[in-house]
Amino acid sequence: MISEPPVPDTSVLAVARNKIAVFVMQSLGCDVAALNTVQFSNHTGYGQWKGTRVTAQEITDLWDGLKQSYLDRFDMMLSGYVPGAAAVEAVGNIAKELKTKSQAKPGSFFWVLDPVMGDNGKLYVADDVVPAYRSLVQHADLILPNQFEAELLSEVKITDLASLRTAVETLHSKYNLPHIVITSVSLPLNTQQALPDGPPPSRTMSVVGSTRTSTGKSRLFSISFPVFDAYFSGTGDMFAALMVVRMREAVQNAASSYSLKDKASWLSDDDVGALELPLAKAAEKVLASMHEVLSRTCEAMQKELGAALAEEPAGDGRLSDDEKAKKIHLIKSSAAELRLARNWGCLRGPVIEYRAVKLE
Amino acid sequence: MISEPPVPDTSVLAVARNKIAVFVMQSLGCDVAALNTVQFSNHTGYGQWKGTRVTAQEITDLWDGLKQSYLDRFDMMLSGYVPGAAAVEAVGNIAKELKTKSQAKPGSFFWVLDPVMGDNGKLYVADDVVPAYRSLVQHADLILPNQFEAELLSEVKITDLASLRTAVETLHSKYNLPHIVITSVSLPLNTQQALPDGPPPSRTMSVVGSTRTSTGKSRLFSISFPVFDAYFSGTGDMFAALMVVRMREAVQNAASSYSLKDKASWLSDDDVGALELPLAKAAEKVLASMHEVLSRTCEAMQKELGAALAEEPAGDGRLSDDEKAKKIHLIKSSAAELRLARNWGCLRGPVIEYRAVKLE
Repeated sequence: MISEPPVPDTSVLAVARNKIAVFVMQSLGCDVAALNTVQFSNHTGYGQWKGTRVTAQEITDLWDGLKQSYLDRFDMMLSGYVPGAAAVEAVGNIAKELKTKSQAKPGSFFWVLDPVMGDNGKLYVADDVVPAYRSLVQHADLILPNQFEAELLSEVKITDLASLRTAVETLHSKYNLPHIVITSVSLPLNTQQALPDGPPPSRTMSVVGSTRTSTGKSRLFSISFPVFDAYFSGTGDMFAALMVVRMREAVQNAASSYSLKDKASWLSDDDVGALELPLAKAAEKVLASMHEVLSRTCEAMQKELGAALAEEPAGDGRLSDDEKAKKIHLIKSSAAELRLARNWGCLRGPVIEYRAVKLE
Repeated sequence: MISEPPVPDTSVLAVARNKIAVFVMQSLGCDVAALNTVQFSNHTGYGQWKGTRVTAQEITDLWDGLKQSYLDRFDMMLSGYVPGAAAVEAVGNIAKELKTKSQAKPGSFFWVLDPVMGDNGKLYVADDVVPAYRSLVQHADLILPNQFEAELLSEVKITDLASLRTAVETLHSKYNLPHIVITSVSLPLNTQQALPDGPPPSRTMSVVGSTRTSTGKSRLFSISFPVFDAYFSGTGDMFAALMVVRMREAVQNAASSYSLKDKASWLSDDDVGALELPLAKAAEKVLASMHEVLSRTCEAMQKELGAALAEEPAGDGRLSDDEKAKKIHLIKSSAAELRLARNWGCLRGPVIEYRAVKLE
């Protein structure tokens, strides 16, 4: 009755906020060692929170603790939000060590790096985090920047398809990066693509991915999907965690005369086209899960908001207008929390609706 | 294909080590807010670890953070390992606040307390943690001590069935405790109970539970189960997390003329016998999951140990005997880590093999 996990035994070191990411990877059968970079009462989208951030020293100590007990054998690593340049460097040192250790056995370690720095033109980390990531990404196997972060790393402003291609090719060449997925591109890339039936979405966005060839050329694909008219926190973490698992799965399933999983960085041969890339297949499954979870979250959110706002009538005389606005924002933030635990099926067996298309 | 979660929407505040507990509760459909009491590189059974413990102040801050954003509505709370008497007190204050807030709506909040203090006659917390728990447990709905912790709280030494009964009745009367499960009783309680076919286990143990009547009398049941010949860390946390969910489920499913879930502390009427208690039904399911997960863990452990010890021949000349013994202990500890992520089915749909019997 219960299907087998999509990946073989997979041990992942997760250095991130981890509230969302750990459960997602565990749900898909991964054994996860969680190094939590924050312990906050709630996510920062609420506008207020309490709690603590991990220091660079604590990251290094925890890593030393793993090593001294022979617990440092990982198939994959996911790094997400890391607080501050020194901590980013500490995380990079862990990844570099694992990378070096794996060199005798190509493909035995794969680092997925989500360079969390900002969004929509605004940094939400300290300025010195940007150069810290710039000097690190060369060691990653797959990076998952959003459009703004891709611009920061490539130093190319993305305004159209040509500059998007330049940005991706710069990331491939400048940092020798094997795989790239830009998680939120708002250019109209392939509006000719048929979207499923139903009311037209308010707007669509795309993810754009590429696995480089042996000569450093890009193999670009994009997948467009409708955007829900609400803000959900944690979608980046969910995307990254799903990508870890689905990439491993796609590489295991890749049809080839040799075993792709035994090649360094899981780099497909040059004759593999953009749409046949494991990266593209993985991204399709990831977006399918994302869309299903967000749909269920939207439904639950509407229901909860209806009830909560009926309970808290707008005419609460004791609160000032500012206080009322703040309270409504907090209630909305809570209602928009991702519904993961009750939607295991969306993570495990999503139905693919949005397909990759080749970007010429 | 994927079954519905066993409980309705359930929001749990988990204040514990949480590595095991959070995943278990999420797997069964609960929405979990995790307040982690430690961030360690590995569990302490390895004999060495690095990392940090949360302070009482941090616990209080995180709770304040939840409250200020209206995130303090919980159906249940699980508290497990808490470092130090001041932190235990801080956790108690959270539970008391939630309890007080729920008084207008009986049964709307339920606190499961695992009073982690020691095992097998030895304390592994500071001495002042014992009185801290003694002054707290009166506010809990269900406590999950092991035999040693039950002795510490009741101040009754458990040596036979009569003293076991005295200990449980003391816990009911002294602290007005609604529900008690002693998680590891090593007395020969009901050896006449038929165990499933197969080679005889090296030894059996029992859990012993009771829900008090309106006059404070006990309703004692026990469930015996075979013990695996290996040490697994985290079984207490797994037991507690499963108990949270299965208790909620059993109370929802309880046949009665009124709704048991709307009664304070989910206290069954006096005419409900020991074996019909939701507590007994919950414990049966919990033990079924435990046994299945531990069986799978045992299998995986044997395989891993075989491979690891072949790789590390005993005749490694560079290591002293002490170093060799330490290394083997570390390898064994790692091999014995609970296999949860790949055994979701054992958590979700276990087959009940060990049944509760009434203790006369």
